[in-house]
Amino acid sequence: MGYIYTMKKRVVCFPITSRIHYARQKHLLEKLNRHSKIDLQLVVGGSVLLDKYGERFLPAIQQSGLNIRDTLFNVVDGGSHIAMAKTAGLTALEFANSLHKLNPDIVVIRGDRFEQLAIAMVAAYLNKTVAHIEGGDLSGTIDESVRHAITKLSHLHFVTNEDARRRVIKMGERPGAVFNVGSPEVEFAAKVDPKRDGRFVNKAGAGPQIDVNKRFLMVLYHPVTTERNNRGKTEALLRAVDALNLPAIWFWPNSDAGTNEIAKAIRVYREHGKLKNNKIRFVTDLLPEDFIGLLRKTSVLVGNSSSGIKEASYFGIPAVNIGSRQKGRLRAENVLDVGNNQSAIAKAINTQLKHGAYPRSKIYYQPGTSDKIVKALSRAKLYAQKTFHEVIANNANNKLKVK
Amino acid sequence: MGYIYTMKKRVVCFPITSRIHYARQKHLLEKLNRHSKIDLQLVVGGSVLLDKYGERFLPAIQQSGLNIRDTLFNVVDGGSHIAMAKTAGLTALEFANSLHKLNPDIVVIRGDRFEQLAIAMVAAYLNKTVAHIEGGDLSGTIDESVRHAITKLSHLHFVTNEDARRRVIKMGERPGAVFNVGSPEVEFAAKVDPKRDGRFVNKAGAGPQIDVNKRFLMVLYHPVTTERNNRGKTEALLRAVDALNLPAIWFWPNSDAGTNEIAKAIRVYREHGKLKNNKIRFVTDLLPEDFIGLLRKTSVLVGNSSSGIKEASYFGIPAVNIGSRQKGRLRAENVLDVGNNQSAIAKAINTQLKHGAYPRSKIYYQPGTSDKIVKALSRAKLYAQKTFHEVIANNANNKLKVK
Amino acid sequence: MGYIYTMKKRVVCFPITSRIHYARQKHLLEKLNRHSKIDLQLVVGGSVLLDKYGERFLPAIQQSGLNIRDTLFNVVDGGSHIAMAKTAGLTALEFANSLHKLNPDIVVIRGDRFEQLAIAMVAAYLNKTVAHIEGGDLSGTIDESVRHAITKLSHLHFVTNEDARRRVIKMGERPGAVFNVGSPEVEFAAKVDPKRDGRFVNKAGAGPQIDVNKRFLMVLYHPVTTERNNRGKTEALLRAVDALNLPAIWFWPNSDAGTNEIAKAIRVYREHGKLKNNKIRFVTDLLPEDFIGLLRKTSVLVGNSSSGIKEASYFGIPAVNIGSRQKGRLRAENVLDVGNNQSAIAKAINTQLKHGAYPRSKIYYQPGTSDKIVKALSRAKLYAQKTFHEVIANNANNKLKVK
Amino acid sequence: MGYIYTMKKRVVCFPITSRIHYARQKHLLEKLNRHSKIDLQLVVGGSVLLDKYGERFLPAIQQSGLNIRDTLFNVVDGGSHIAMAKTAGLTALEFANSLHKLNPDIVVIRGDRFEQLAIAMVAAYLNKTVAHIEGGDLSGTIDESVRHAITKLSHLHFVTNEDARRRVIKMGERPGAVFNVGSPEVEFAAKVDPKRDGRFVNKAGAGPQIDVNKRFLMVLYHPVTTERNNRGKTEALLRAVDALNLPAIWFWPNSDAGTNEIAKAIRVYREHGKLKNNKIRFVTDLLPEDFIGLLRKTSVLVGNSSSGIKEASYFGIPAVNIGSRQKGRLRAENVLDVGNNQSAIAKAINTQLKHGAYPRSKIYYQPGTSDKIVKALSRAKLYAQKTFHEVIANNANNKLKVK
Repeated sequence: MGYIYTMKKRVVCFPITSRIHYARQKHLLEKLNRHSKIDLQLVVGGSVLLDKYGERFLPAIQQSGLNIRDTLFNVVDGGSHIAMAKTAGLTALEFANSLHKLNPDIVVIRGDRFEQLAIAMVAAYLNKTVAHIEGGDLSGTIDESVRHAITKLSHLHFVTNEDARRRVIKMGERPGAVFNVGSPEVEFAAKVDPKRDGRFVNKAGAGPQIDVNKRFLMVLYHPVTTERNNRGKTEALLRAVDALNLPAIWFWPNSDAGTNEIAKAIRVYREHGKLKNNKIRFVTDLLPEDFIGLLRKTSVLVGNSSSGIKEASYFGIPAVNIGSRQKGRLRAENVLDVGNNQSAIAKAINTQLKHGAYPRSKIYYQPGTSDKIVKALSRAKLYAQKTFHEVIANNANNKLKVK
Repeated sequence: MGYIYTMKKRVVCFPITSRIHYARQKHLLEKLNRHSKIDLQLVVGGSVLLDKYGERFLPAIQQSGLNIRDTLFNVVDGGSHIAMAKTAGLTALEFANSLHKLNPDIVVIRGDRFEQLAIAMVAAYLNKTVAHIEGGDLSGTIDESVRHAITKLSHLHFVTNEDARRRVIKMGERPGAVFNVGSPEVEFAAKVDPKRDGRFVNKAGAGPQIDVNKRFLMVLYHPVTTERNNRGKTEALLRAVDALNLPAIWFWPNSDAGTNEIAKAIRVYREHGKLKNNKIRFVTDLLPEDFIGLLRKTSVLVGNSSSGIKEASYFGIPAVNIGSRQKGRLRAENVLDVGNNQSAIAKAINTQLKHGAYPRSKIYYQPGTSDKIVKALSRAKLYAQKTFHEVIANNANNKLKVK
Repeated sequence: MGYIYTMKKRVVCFPITSRIHYARQKHLLEKLNRHSKIDLQLVVGGSVLLDKYGERFLPAIQQSGLNIRDTLFNVVDGGSHIAMAKTAGLTALEFANSLHKLNPDIVVIRGDRFEQLAIAMVAAYLNKTVAHIEGGDLSGTIDESVRHAITKLSHLHFVTNEDARRRVIKMGERPGAVFNVGSPEVEFAAKVDPKRDGRFVNKAGAGPQIDVNKRFLMVLYHPVTTERNNRGKTEALLRAVDALNLPAIWFWPNSDAGTNEIAKAIRVYREHGKLKNNKIRFVTDLLPEDFIGLLRKTSVLVGNSSSGIKEASYFGIPAVNIGSRQKGRLRAENVLDVGNNQSAIAKAINTQLKHGAYPRSKIYYQPGTSDKIVKALSRAKLYAQKTFHEVIANNANNKLKVK
Repeated sequence: MGYIYTMKKRVVCFPITSRIHYARQKHLLEKLNRHSKIDLQLVVGGSVLLDKYGERFLPAIQQSGLNIRDTLFNVVDGGSHIAMAKTAGLTALEFANSLHKLNPDIVVIRGDRFEQLAIAMVAAYLNKTVAHIEGGDLSGTIDESVRHAITKLSHLHFVTNEDARRRVIKMGERPGAVFNVGSPEVEFAAKVDPKRDGRFVNKAGAGPQIDVNKRFLMVLYHPVTTERNNRGKTEALLRAVDALNLPAIWFWPNSDAGTNEIAKAIRVYREHGKLKNNKIRFVTDLLPEDFIGLLRKTSVLVGNSSSGIKEASYFGIPAVNIGSRQKGRLRAENVLDVGNNQSAIAKAINTQLKHGAYPRSKIYYQPGTSDKIVKALSRAKLYAQKTFHEVIANNANNKLKVK
């Protein structure tokens, strides 16, 4: 007669505080959820719970079979710097409670959103092993500081490119804990059903219908929290896109400091008839597959989202990247950088329209990204106390030696 | 005839959340306060406001002529990991409000206490220029992660030694923003009136009187938040000190995760007659000058405080450093490292008693530390957006080049 | 030679967490601000600080010469019950800090909004003398519980009618501390310049222009937090008003549990073309004088705001009061009560349209309301400890005797 | 053929934020826990979780078979008014989350501690049916306001005496929702095994051993938050008890505003040798059975706890009630009231020592208290919206009529 050996599962907590934390890692989350030795805990907060930032995500997560263990309303309303700072404080308070109660072995932090640093902080204080996805990249806005501070609180690092790996190690992280696995969002994008064409966008948001089989623009423009005049910059972009008189899909911004300014610019332009042509459809959110479907169809992706640099590069979609938000981020040839000036933006969009599709790039793509992360999470040694690894770089070949 | 030119003063906010933030920088704070072009704002929180951690500091600060602009009760009671994590959250919420209202140009973060990271985070989110004192050092406990995360949120770095400077730059900080100025606490210690002999200790705390002109031990033992069994380790130390049967002054620990365990160990040992010899005086706090007065007189400083490594090295006072808390910290020859074992601790104390005084070391000392910090704070360029500086190290001479 | 005797001013703190706290007491606030023996402190939080609830109030307060001592972002985003409960918690935390620092003699609580109970609670815990305006009234929704709980935390009571006075005393309050002074909002309404006709509404909000000299409706509809289906009830009202095909001005709801449902109903109806006639103008906020100007011009005030019962009664404006929100509130003949049924609402509006203006009522009006409050606040004895006053009512003449 | 009808259990949440919430209702909690149609949820916070307030309660609750669903560290450290106010805010935030997640049908609020009002508030905002135990009593300190404010947020009222019932109804509560069931703590006290004699006290706390079979005093003295000089009043009591030179057991105070002062008084008197006779044993906590065991044995209960008025009356134990804290509370002849003056206290204790035991009183006792509460909780109609019940009192016979 036999017996049943039940190994204790490794408990992995995944805090989701923005739609992108789900959208960009849907594939990874599904793999974690199906793994026989992992118990995946989702804790959902932030704009995912707020109607005004979209009402499709929470039901989608709930129906996906993922295990939501806590929902935490942690957003202090305002869309300003003080609201953002206080949201971080409230996030720390609430996720401390939740992590204490759920008691996971590992907490997975994603990217560089400001709330995620608050969660990484309390996870570290609770002696959890912290894993970080997408460290070592460079960018502008507060994300640049947030990303590296999370790195210094994390024990495991899943970076998306070799430059990032090198930087994370130079910052003192143990090389054996830094895994270059490629970008989960590009892996996800690569796997979306080619038939998905994004026409669902016409059931979301408000404005004119968009024929996704004809030329159209997509606009994703988020605040730069470290700069002034997000409102004026948004208005310049609104005027530039409006003047082009092309069908366009404009996505409302994330919840950040400066969101209030961007929202006000859009609201005033829409409601007070300041847009001359009625060609822009405004959308709060689309499910991840619909977003990728649209992205594959768009003529030019305009704005300052990393999607223009990451997902768009994989498909060779022309991108116009505005301002400083993505400064320093590794990019392929599909990206045309431009300042916040209306005519410069218009000119850049026209340049990209004329150019058309670029060759597909794999700078952020690796096959098996999610599998690699899942494997590392299921096997990694758990520990709390970090040690700084001193690095001696060799100028000649730029290979790293570790003391 | 002349005219009066009134330059707007630079507003510098100094959050004090622990007695050491005042004690170790008293000299710096006084210099900032007297500077004609600086408006110094003190915001006081943490254990400084709590009777049980000592009642001398708040009045001392108030009487010193320093300008307390806000007092914030931000400690969630418990002394456990969850209490520490929630304290960080509450700290972020409260200091966000206070910094928003006080609107300083620069926020100065000191060292590596867990609440200071929460403050650095919200200061960065509010687009303040963040200055950090004592980055780049190495240690154990959660302080190790906290210190480096603060570095990545800071714009100005006042490090205390050359190794620390090198590390901060390797982590991507701009070399021109990293100042090796020596340790403010060692500068302060060097300036304390030599007549101050610490005998005030007999009016503080509880237990037998200590003759500060005879042989006596000082014990400073804090929790290591990333390890288990702080209680058992404290008991081993209590037994070791008690068995030596020497007069000793034992300072209650900081407010951290594990403080509850250390406090319980001390309470149970004291109140249930588990100490065989009645030679230990337990003290919650001493004013900085009295502490240094005592330190100069003690035979051996025992425990895991950085005072054993920093201030004690300057005076050549023998130190027994227990456990992992100061792991990696640059040290002079006065420090004898030992594990958490009772007999090993006893043996190490005896070794140091026999050895007696060491040569004075200046590894952490520079003249004019505070002057250098004040000067830099009064002149530094103010900005919010950080940029990662890529470094190419040259193996041969260990000088740094920056791209 | 003489000497100058400077009496210490009495410090009165007025927390404003909703536009109505300013709008309905503008006259009182101005009187308090001008009083030679009162130092008025305004602390502003809640929806007043949030663009989406209107951007005119904060500048208006700032320009009015009133002294804003603190602005506190205290709204947890969501518009749901949990967001409302957490907003109350955050409000308590933040106002505790603010009241502790400002250290007023008296804190004035207005009405029955849920955040005001949180403020009354912490004011009482800080041993402040708490004054309450508009206790003793009856209503539906959570306001009913909130109002009476505030009464039991308050030391001074400014009620607006005799029934309310009787109830407050029966609840155990000291009769000498209960002042029937009439309604500050009706006093304010009575004083608004008759030339102010509200046509500014056409510069606020979105939708068709409204000719304020012709027939038009005003709609103010807020959630009932203790009931379900605020969305469905809002849709019924939208359909009823739309079908009447009359020009209408619809005000967005307060920030409360259920606001998310009402906002969604409006958004979906507007953006998805569910409104057949384009006659409704949607407005977030109007300054108090413009609101009263409009009210005096409207044919019927529809919804469940107390304005339909209080201010409207003074002008004899017909009101259609929907649902349970104002249940039990003392009312004049201008009010026609109706359930949440679409056709019933339509019928009631038509009835009121046919009826036209009612006689002006003074059930909530007294001359000198603000003067009476200011006088009492400037003279009242300050104390913390409350005592329950046992009441013996005399059936015959309904006069109250107190033991 | 039959079928199985499975009724959904009624979910009852019991927030415990002080040891007394467990101690005084142990019997009730056990009954609720065993009831076949009730699912009892305990949420534990406050001083129950804090070592310094005693370490016996949490293990005792855990071992009792009761179902702890959440533990919430909600105490802001300080023991001052601002710490108390902020604790209330943090309590509201945290319990809002917990109640939202646990989603009970009924939340049971106990007594008049300041955190319980914060919980009642958020429970009401979440549309829970709120049940309140021990409303309608009178007392001093902030409890007086807290208790009545909770009444006005509650739907079900379990009062302990007829006067309380009358008051709750006069405050506008529906008579059918007010149950005079007697005092749960007196019922519990009545059921404690007569063999339990409290000698365990000698294993708790610090100080001399107490022979529980000889004459000894018990002292329970808590801060009065609405008064000044809790420290001086405590010192007067310390001197009075010390001068009597009798064995005494002194319990540390609750966590309240003023606790810091009382704790400092005790600490200074103990540690600085200000107590002339060494007869006082200081104890943080005892399990409920041990406390009652001691109470039955003590010669006089001294201080300002309601135990002197409630439990002591049942056993006829002489009580000296100091100051205003229990002002207005219904009392039996065992209570001798006295001010805060040292000699008056000493004199009163001597009077009670001479008098010895009083007749047992049943003013707070009813058989079956817990059964009655359980029955009502299991059957009561659940609802959110409260209505004010207007009462017409008849002077002649003091019976109440309700409109």
